[in-house]
Amino acid sequence: MPGSTGAKPITAAVVVIGNEVLSGRTQDANVHYLGRRLAERGVRLREVRIVTDDEDAIAAAVNELRARHDHVFTTGGIGPTHDDITARSVAKAFGAGFGRNAEAEAILRRHYKPEDLTEARLKMADMPDPPGGVTLLENPVSRAPGFRIGNVYVLPGVPKIMQAMFDQLAATLAGGPPVESVTVTAALPEGTMAAPLADVQARHPGVEIGSYPFFRMGRIGSALVARSADAAGLEAAAADIRAMVRDLGGEILDD
Amino acid sequence: MPGSTGAKPITAAVVVIGNEVLSGRTQDANVHYLGRRLAERGVRLREVRIVTDDEDAIAAAVNELRARHDHVFTTGGIGPTHDDITARSVAKAFGAGFGRNAEAEAILRRHYKPEDLTEARLKMADMPDPPGGVTLLENPVSRAPGFRIGNVYVLPGVPKIMQAMFDQLAATLAGGPPVESVTVTAALPEGTMAAPLADVQARHPGVEIGSYPFFRMGRIGSALVARSADAAGLEAAAADIRAMVRDLGGEILDD
Repeated sequence: MPGSTGAKPITAAVVVIGNEVLSGRTQDANVHYLGRRLAERGVRLREVRIVTDDEDAIAAAVNELRARHDHVFTTGGIGPTHDDITARSVAKAFGAGFGRNAEAEAILRRHYKPEDLTEARLKMADMPDPPGGVTLLENPVSRAPGFRIGNVYVLPGVPKIMQAMFDQLAATLAGGPPVESVTVTAALPEGTMAAPLADVQARHPGVEIGSYPFFRMGRIGSALVARSADAAGLEAAAADIRAMVRDLGGEILDD
Repeated sequence: MPGSTGAKPITAAVVVIGNEVLSGRTQDANVHYLGRRLAERGVRLREVRIVTDDEDAIAAAVNELRARHDHVFTTGGIGPTHDDITARSVAKAFGAGFGRNAEAEAILRRHYKPEDLTEARLKMADMPDPPGGVTLLENPVSRAPGFRIGNVYVLPGVPKIMQAMFDQLAATLAGGPPVESVTVTAALPEGTMAAPLADVQARHPGVEIGSYPFFRMGRIGSALVARSADAAGLEAAAADIRAMVRDLGGEILDD
């Protein structure tokens, strides 16, 4: 597969728990953030599933994905309301018990005044209880922690909080050399370049080359994106792409 | 499951073919559009998978999803370049042959000047060839058609073209009464409302009620979203939600 450079790449998947995304009410922003940030850490995001707020759907997605990726992230469904069922669903996926986590409860008790610590809020400390326990993930914004169980990181859906929590855990993730990309924007339609571009791809098997057409201010063009964790290979492929565009008489709009 | 009102709801799934979405380079916009437009037609979007440009990954996602949903939409990967492998992957999913579609080729020949109709562009007429054929989906923007095979609709990834093609086929989709939603935006944190909101949900099993916290201009609040295809049931649930917010002394920010 293009993009691999010898060693098996570190891969990740995301499960978005998201009735509100599926209904078209909310535009998900977390996949975009995670894809970009994981690439910086040399982790390739390979699969995303957006599922309904349904225990079996969440558990099935988590189990399929954790078996074939190094890291799995879930976003959403860990608040205090009736539709927040992610922690329970992840416990089910692992066949683990589920109950009040003492460390998480202590964090909530430090944060909330006693009269504000409703039973609903305490529910945010209910987590899977596997042998050896879970690892809490610090929430610098609103305090209620996420958790890691095995290779699954359970994060909230509110983008600002999710991002803050991911940024804290990012340094602990097993990764690799950063996956870098170069985009050559050509004022040429895809159909004109397809054959020579396939040749460039064939000459650079360790670089993943994608072509994305656009229509911008009345102009037809193509964004040619090369991606790789091998910096030298990436530059060589990008140079070949630029030479190809020039050979075809095309203008490079930006680079 | 909340949201069903007797008759089995019509459901849909989307497969986004999308290295560029997974890498964090591009923010997907198609899921948001499809979720909203499908709901208007009484179709519930239940699952989304974002997969890499990989034949087996695409075929596996299509096969799992077409078996359990009424409609499946794929977006992306149907252009002329080497990374456009969706049509071939869908043929594989159906165990169908794959080759030049005469009707699609005729459309391309009408659109392009002979000297512009490269072999790469002709490849856009290569489609699955099941017994009985595929149904072409008209592309009013850039002409290269999509296709329907069984309950799977193969659409492009460029949002403007995808949207134009979906709008043309929408009227042909089996659907139901539109799924409507009412959002009550309350200046109350989720933890305060969780217990009474769960009661409202229990009283309205035919309405799906979600709670989404937000932090806006220094204020903490919750968007309480009720969704149903049963208009009267929806209004009753929304009235109960508003009464609940007032009983808790909360302000309704907008409605």
